[in-house]
Amino acid sequence: MQTLQVDLGTRSYPIYIGSGLLDDSALLARHIAGRQVAIVSNETVAPLYLERLAQALKDYQVTRIVLPDGEAHKNWETLQSIFDGLLQARHDRRTTVIALGGGVIGDMAGFAAACYQRGVNFIQVPTTLLSQVDSSVGGKTGINHPLGKNMVGAFYQPQAVLIDIASLSTLPARELSAGLAEVIKYGLICDEPFLGWLETHMDVLRELDNAALTTAIARSCEAKARVVGADERESGIRATLNLGHTFGHAIETHMGYGVWLHGEAVSAGTVMALEMSHRLGWISAAERDRGIRLLQRAGLPVVPPKEMTPEHFLEHMAVDKKVLDGQLRLVLLKRLGEAVVTADYAQDALQATLSTDYRALVEQLGDA
Amino acid sequence: MQTLQVDLGTRSYPIYIGSGLLDDSALLARHIAGRQVAIVSNETVAPLYLERLAQALKDYQVTRIVLPDGEAHKNWETLQSIFDGLLQARHDRRTTVIALGGGVIGDMAGFAAACYQRGVNFIQVPTTLLSQVDSSVGGKTGINHPLGKNMVGAFYQPQAVLIDIASLSTLPARELSAGLAEVIKYGLICDEPFLGWLETHMDVLRELDNAALTTAIARSCEAKARVVGADERESGIRATLNLGHTFGHAIETHMGYGVWLHGEAVSAGTVMALEMSHRLGWISAAERDRGIRLLQRAGLPVVPPKEMTPEHFLEHMAVDKKVLDGQLRLVLLKRLGEAVVTADYAQDALQATLSTDYRALVEQLGDA
Repeated sequence: MQTLQVDLGTRSYPIYIGSGLLDDSALLARHIAGRQVAIVSNETVAPLYLERLAQALKDYQVTRIVLPDGEAHKNWETLQSIFDGLLQARHDRRTTVIALGGGVIGDMAGFAAACYQRGVNFIQVPTTLLSQVDSSVGGKTGINHPLGKNMVGAFYQPQAVLIDIASLSTLPARELSAGLAEVIKYGLICDEPFLGWLETHMDVLRELDNAALTTAIARSCEAKARVVGADERESGIRATLNLGHTFGHAIETHMGYGVWLHGEAVSAGTVMALEMSHRLGWISAAERDRGIRLLQRAGLPVVPPKEMTPEHFLEHMAVDKKVLDGQLRLVLLKRLGEAVVTADYAQDALQATLSTDYRALVEQLGDA
Repeated sequence: MQTLQVDLGTRSYPIYIGSGLLDDSALLARHIAGRQVAIVSNETVAPLYLERLAQALKDYQVTRIVLPDGEAHKNWETLQSIFDGLLQARHDRRTTVIALGGGVIGDMAGFAAACYQRGVNFIQVPTTLLSQVDSSVGGKTGINHPLGKNMVGAFYQPQAVLIDIASLSTLPARELSAGLAEVIKYGLICDEPFLGWLETHMDVLRELDNAALTTAIARSCEAKARVVGADERESGIRATLNLGHTFGHAIETHMGYGVWLHGEAVSAGTVMALEMSHRLGWISAAERDRGIRLLQRAGLPVVPPKEMTPEHFLEHMAVDKKVLDGQLRLVLLKRLGEAVVTADYAQDALQATLSTDYRALVEQLGDA
């Protein structure tokens, strides 16, 4: 088992990475204060892992709360059913909420923990690659609003994150790829050597090689923990973690939550950010193409939906949380391995980026 | 204008108490960071004060969000309409939410500010006595759940509290009385000399004497600020502020939110807490009766609803936030001016308190 630390003063917490952590009663007990726990999971993950986790928690009063699966359910109605479950089983403010599932479960269970009786303890047990390398670390929780993704939420840190690598064995290939989009992101924004490692190990990662997965997850979590420790509430550098996300959120919102997986939308959005960084003269065409090829090799879409016009993008991006006093800030690459958040770009470059024929760009790439 | 300070380290903030603060552009501007503000009010208060406040904020982009009035609307649907208003007007994370109204508006606007884009700035402009002396100070925000009051919420501190005494001139007498319940509470829990002052000034307070109101509000806010400063997240002494509230919440829940005003339920609940403290031998019958008489003179109900049985109370109190690991903690009086939070009482005393014939108790009091 590897242990990393997210360094946030009195709210610091460990990330454990290993195989079989779901069954580790002693490890779990270390982070539970009261006698009650509520496991929040979804209809897909619960049949696979919920009873194993409940068994590891048999010394506690365990409440099981199983939600419908998918980003489309990341809304108030579903959140309300967590509160219903907690109140019906009379959970008090010393209870611990455990999120067992992907990013949607972690975001909703974490937000429920942040709000239930104005805040109770909370443990993340992420079961998808995406949530293991991204959403389970850093304390962002929340739900979607019909007018924007993650518009309602809280910064709320867990007591611990338990990453059980073994749970990836049941993850659909499409979702593994979606997780790799965020892994590749860390290379692009702050760890250029990691890009080379990923180029070497992409095939074994997709074959679920345990050692490769542990390395990729730990290196991703380290990057995330470093950035979150420096800027918990995203007043500065933390926003670089959103490479590809502003374009990606526009895709998710436009297509309807859940049609494109988050990681898929981020992948296409990252291609757009690479293209714009290239148009601004910050990275070369070869560097842009290197990023695109790696996303392709991870099994990810690299072309935004053909039905989306530049106007669609602009409309959705106008409500992005990175808008400040009317200015849209974008995460772009100064070079491979170094991201910046900036509103200081030519509007023409954004327009050109939104108007680019990505299908043609990628086809030409195939010939290279 | 009087200024008090709530001392919470980096989250400290001032409470201003004076007449005409609603129109004080410079004072408001001191606590607004961005260019956008959203005034959240209700259908009763908005026609009286919203445009005056908007006029004082004419240098900003002002969004008006007017909610239905009353505790019955302190729920998710109404909260959602605040998010709708913020998103439709494209408020970004530098916006400031201003709560203009009573406790329900403050709790909901504050919770919306806590959750909108994971937290934006927020100013309290309480217009009822109850919210001026209690809910606007201390950072408790939230909404009700069908299974319990204030079960969903956040600790979230405002940038400032502006108490405009002049707004009490339009407050219905019944609501003024409800506010006095909380004023009397401060005397009972931590300021015995204040009880004497209130006995002398109760009539002029109810006649809205400006000087008496300023004194009563400032003394109440000082007590609250002191307690909140010592225990922001209610791990200890802050719970003493809930004298009468556990019984009172049971009344509110049972009768349906809004049928009894919060202060009215707290008044009857305080009588029950006085009775129980007497039964435990901590205060004398005369001290209990002194408290009851003061609540009566404030125009408040001092008898719980006759349709409520001891079983009703126990059922509702079982989900109170002060339950820890199955133990119901109650706020009781060791003596007038000193409250304790305790689960260490004879169950018989609670049963006897719930079974007391308060009508008879109060009638006999009238003869004294």
